[in-house]
Amino acid sequence: MTLAARTADLLGQFHETAPRIHCITNSVAQNFTANALLAVDARPSMTLDPAELPEFVGSADALLVNLGTLDVERRTAIGVALEAAERNGTPWVLDPVMVDRSGGRRAGAIELLDRGPAVLRGNASELACLAECDEANAAAELARRARCVVWQTGAEDIVTDGAETVRLSHGHPLMTRVTAMGCAAAALCAAFRAVEADSLTAASATALSFGIAGEIAGETARGPGSFSPHFLDALAGLNGPQLTQRSPAT
Amino acid sequence: MTLAARTADLLGQFHETAPRIHCITNSVAQNFTANALLAVDARPSMTLDPAELPEFVGSADALLVNLGTLDVERRTAIGVALEAAERNGTPWVLDPVMVDRSGGRRAGAIELLDRGPAVLRGNASELACLAECDEANAAAELARRARCVVWQTGAEDIVTDGAETVRLSHGHPLMTRVTAMGCAAAALCAAFRAVEADSLTAASATALSFGIAGEIAGETARGPGSFSPHFLDALAGLNGPQLTQRSPAT
Amino acid sequence: MTLAARTADLLGQFHETAPRIHCITNSVAQNFTANALLAVDARPSMTLDPAELPEFVGSADALLVNLGTLDVERRTAIGVALEAAERNGTPWVLDPVMVDRSGGRRAGAIELLDRGPAVLRGNASELACLAECDEANAAAELARRARCVVWQTGAEDIVTDGAETVRLSHGHPLMTRVTAMGCAAAALCAAFRAVEADSLTAASATALSFGIAGEIAGETARGPGSFSPHFLDALAGLNGPQLTQRSPAT
Repeated sequence: MTLAARTADLLGQFHETAPRIHCITNSVAQNFTANALLAVDARPSMTLDPAELPEFVGSADALLVNLGTLDVERRTAIGVALEAAERNGTPWVLDPVMVDRSGGRRAGAIELLDRGPAVLRGNASELACLAECDEANAAAELARRARCVVWQTGAEDIVTDGAETVRLSHGHPLMTRVTAMGCAAAALCAAFRAVEADSLTAASATALSFGIAGEIAGETARGPGSFSPHFLDALAGLNGPQLTQRSPAT
Repeated sequence: MTLAARTADLLGQFHETAPRIHCITNSVAQNFTANALLAVDARPSMTLDPAELPEFVGSADALLVNLGTLDVERRTAIGVALEAAERNGTPWVLDPVMVDRSGGRRAGAIELLDRGPAVLRGNASELACLAECDEANAAAELARRARCVVWQTGAEDIVTDGAETVRLSHGHPLMTRVTAMGCAAAALCAAFRAVEADSLTAASATALSFGIAGEIAGETARGPGSFSPHFLDALAGLNGPQLTQRSPAT
Repeated sequence: MTLAARTADLLGQFHETAPRIHCITNSVAQNFTANALLAVDARPSMTLDPAELPEFVGSADALLVNLGTLDVERRTAIGVALEAAERNGTPWVLDPVMVDRSGGRRAGAIELLDRGPAVLRGNASELACLAECDEANAAAELARRARCVVWQTGAEDIVTDGAETVRLSHGHPLMTRVTAMGCAAAALCAAFRAVEADSLTAASATALSFGIAGEIAGETARGPGSFSPHFLDALAGLNGPQLTQRSPAT
């Protein structure tokens, strides 16, 4: 089965099962992230309260841990949420936003890598900062070291488990001019991981969906402002024929 | 006077009086909620700081208490805000978001019901969870128990004070695919309650406005992304003829 | 050189240098503010964590201090951020949102004025509240007292250092019906100040850009909902000919 066909199947499963995705994410990204999840019929929740997190994570199908605006409240929330995820076997995705801007955030991200995320998503400079190596080798190096799938986002997306690697070139330049696109991508990856146990497939399906929705949106958007609603429309409407037609190689 | 005519009157009062609505709400919903209030010419404020809340609530015409992301900061804020509201006789609307996902949140919501909200808004499963009864009877049961108006949102909206009941079937399926629609609806209800002392009429007028704006937006939206701006445009442009024409029965 | 020509130059510098703007701002405004900065190719960051702020502010080209939702977390963040800004000589813009609604916020704003912002932005009533004088004289009075540039936003924008004054009448009435427009304007001013050392020119260029983007958006928007994406599109596309053609007098 091609990646496009598998991705279409998984999108269909969202509509049937409406997976619950709990997101610990930064306040800049919360609204757009929730809308990206709702666009594919996943169900977001976002509380950070330690008293509520065990129940919310306990009844979620996957968890997102995003390190943007990593304050004391979120550090505490992450600890509580990961304990609940480990207790329940809930898969989680780590997004170390701007880890290259702060030593403390980098240290925190490295500790989290030890706790077994299913997928680590970052751009080339964030991953290189985490791996302490050059950008070309960072994704594979981190995948081997943390024994997880690494999804490096950029003009070319690289998804690797350290052995097998999928490369995809979709998307649109306006995606770098809209805040929270990467954060929403990682949340969507958590949703795919909720319905697809193979993390390499889940991350590749997310990269394909996100990139093709970006391509479609970019064809009609007149700038970064109209790109956002067009992108959510495209994501909500993604179907098998679109995915197949736009990704003949996969 | 029909509900449509009364609703048009109240929308006109927003333009004249620009009522101030203080909102204690979750960070996911803050931006969209502020924009929904501004769309009808109400004036939102959203600080959670205990030192500032007495002045902000004291100069507001109504208060929204939304329990999404119910953290320590918001628990404290709700206590301070309600004291100010009680001191000033400010009406308030309670929105127990996702109360069916957390026992602690449910307990908090039940305590708040005792403090006399003008209107309680929730979907069928949230209200059933609060009332500990089946969904069909939850709204009426809660209205009688808490002596407030209950607005149950869904494909059919039910507004009841336990004796009289208004049923409305407006809206659009895309409203469930955009985050914070329900939160914004409750904030708008606080605005209507600021200019209409009868809570049953205020909640019914909100349900009618919100639902018809959703219908109008749904006619041109191409998905959940474009639905949001179309909805705010429709809400801002709502007028008497539209309301009357689309609600012949009321 | 006209203000329009200078503004076009500065917008060009954003594309070349991608200045980093750290924003301490309220949670209602964060997403729209980040998108307004990204629209002109500036790079926003928004963490409030005291442990991370020195590094984020230390590597930023300008800082925004916005007092909307001024809670304990933000009070602490402002102190830490300003120390870092002072240490690094980083210019900063002060936006005392709704300072006329809370005595404590007013006191805080007055203390901050003593710490030397490059630009103070506010509407007429906020500035009059700070200056304790009538609205007509508030901007000039505050500019002299705080030895900074004051940008008073409204139907007519006034930019003054107490001696020289620039008056601009651009924009669109829908700008008052969308939340966070003023907050985003102040953030954009920080970006202009990052690439233009003269604060009067930086604030005037911001007022011109923001106002003309608003004019352009207002020509096609069908309400406050569609105004937002149209505005960001217009801001991202602003160029010399548009600025010159729409501001013949400057």
